[in-house]
Amino acid sequence: MIDLEQIRQAAARLAPWVRRTPVLTSRTLDERTGAAVFLKCENFQRIGAFKFRGAMNALLTLDDDAKRRGVVTHSSGNHAQALALAGKRLGVPVCIVMPRTAPAVKRQATEGYGAEVVSCEPTLADREATVSRLIAERGYHLVHPYDDWNVIAGQGTAAWELLDEVGPLDVVITPVGGGGLLSGTAITVKGRSPATQVIGAEPEAADDALRSLLSGRIEPSHDPKTIADGLRTSLGQRPFSVIRSHVDTIATASESGILDAMRFLFERMKIVVEPSGSLPLAVLLNGRVPAEGRRIGLILSGGNVDLEPLFAALGSQVASRS
Amino acid sequence: MIDLEQIRQAAARLAPWVRRTPVLTSRTLDERTGAAVFLKCENFQRIGAFKFRGAMNALLTLDDDAKRRGVVTHSSGNHAQALALAGKRLGVPVCIVMPRTAPAVKRQATEGYGAEVVSCEPTLADREATVSRLIAERGYHLVHPYDDWNVIAGQGTAAWELLDEVGPLDVVITPVGGGGLLSGTAITVKGRSPATQVIGAEPEAADDALRSLLSGRIEPSHDPKTIADGLRTSLGQRPFSVIRSHVDTIATASESGILDAMRFLFERMKIVVEPSGSLPLAVLLNGRVPAEGRRIGLILSGGNVDLEPLFAALGSQVASRS
Repeated sequence: MIDLEQIRQAAARLAPWVRRTPVLTSRTLDERTGAAVFLKCENFQRIGAFKFRGAMNALLTLDDDAKRRGVVTHSSGNHAQALALAGKRLGVPVCIVMPRTAPAVKRQATEGYGAEVVSCEPTLADREATVSRLIAERGYHLVHPYDDWNVIAGQGTAAWELLDEVGPLDVVITPVGGGGLLSGTAITVKGRSPATQVIGAEPEAADDALRSLLSGRIEPSHDPKTIADGLRTSLGQRPFSVIRSHVDTIATASESGILDAMRFLFERMKIVVEPSGSLPLAVLLNGRVPAEGRRIGLILSGGNVDLEPLFAALGSQVASRS
Repeated sequence: MIDLEQIRQAAARLAPWVRRTPVLTSRTLDERTGAAVFLKCENFQRIGAFKFRGAMNALLTLDDDAKRRGVVTHSSGNHAQALALAGKRLGVPVCIVMPRTAPAVKRQATEGYGAEVVSCEPTLADREATVSRLIAERGYHLVHPYDDWNVIAGQGTAAWELLDEVGPLDVVITPVGGGGLLSGTAITVKGRSPATQVIGAEPEAADDALRSLLSGRIEPSHDPKTIADGLRTSLGQRPFSVIRSHVDTIATASESGILDAMRFLFERMKIVVEPSGSLPLAVLLNGRVPAEGRRIGLILSGGNVDLEPLFAALGSQVASRS
């Protein structure tokens, strides 16, 4: 397992490469919760999500030979674009294995950063076989989306910046999907301030992290029905080992609670946050986390949400007038 | 006419009351335009628009007797909410005259800040008669949405903060509707840096400011068909006198150009900006303003946009799964 020293090194290593994202506050939110709430806006991070931190840290820690050979991963989401952009910045070849059913727009966005996309069948077996084949044939290094210590250390640097900026906190809440962000955050926060609570937030409809903490082993997530598409994954082994030892609890939110939180962020804070990124606010607003008089940090993990319905409606308004 | 000294005083007077909004930058935007672009985010201002600056400055400059009697204005938009909130903060009674056809949600938002809403017929004649009657009966002071020097001075403080934060600029672009923001900005920018260009941005479909500059008198705006609902107004006399003498030019954007700019702000910058607030970026992206190698400030005036189509679509996704 890694410790605070690896996070400290990752923060220094990443400083020239990542965006130091702003921390926003809201008088309305403080009045509603009775807390002092600090929102670390990783939706403003490069590629629109915290994932760039972990991907970049993984590439920066490769030796020169591995950098020349390149890296591979499986993802059709933010990790794919994060690794593609990190590879472009550092001149490291990047190959992304994506199910052939992935939306064309995701494929194009990844290729737009110069990565090669290799299609596989939409099954776990073929995905793993394809990745293994590429590693064997081309000597690639695997950068797993969350089950990788260098990725976890990178994700922990968002909380590192948050604590640097706002000082001591009573609680820090992050979303939990595969567990990379939550485990990196927990190492950072508990390392710097053992009394601070660290809480993971997940949809009620995808509560595998909560069930895993209760049973003591990784409970798989079976195609859960949640709007928070970034949190449908099961926990990785490395993140789970950290979460068991460092995380205080997991809180959940309903689907309508997730949308209410997202709406608050759009309408009142004027920021674009994806459903997964709204989970920490959702568990705060539904009262699952005692808030009165406490200083609470929320990590808003990303802002990559499909805005087509909004722009289709605005486009129709324009068309109906001309 | 007011000068830089009034803006300086307004900036000092407003500092404890307004939000010092962030200035964002975007590597993608700089690469696309060849410029260094600075976005002053007044969508993050209280009530979601720059209008709070002017309204607050107008109330802070009233004498004690006028403060006791209260103020009146006509608006169903951002100025109504801005004045209502300013009155609430200072304990000044606020009365808003709104056409009875205004959306219930606007009326409720204004009443939510403690203002009284008086309905009128949706005609200019009845609106003015209603305001005059209230002034005669109750001794109210009128705070016009833009044709008021104290309002104009308040609006100019957004550019004041922008220059303080990023230093000298070659160009500053703001939207132009009634002209309060553009005229206040022009006094600020030309007062501090006479060589800096000041440009107003308006929809092609509502180009009354451009026509007014060309003809030398205020050309009325006749119910123009534009998605930028904040910019449908004709220029006020005081703003026009400043614009004639201080503003370099007016640039226009098409309706689809406005939507493209708004989409860039949502998708790439992850911020919520209303159509009117997207105009400065729209004229920059359509090439109307020479950009290569220049330092360009854009004032994103507000973020109050109807997001119902987006949340309706997300709500349907949730409902279809449960």
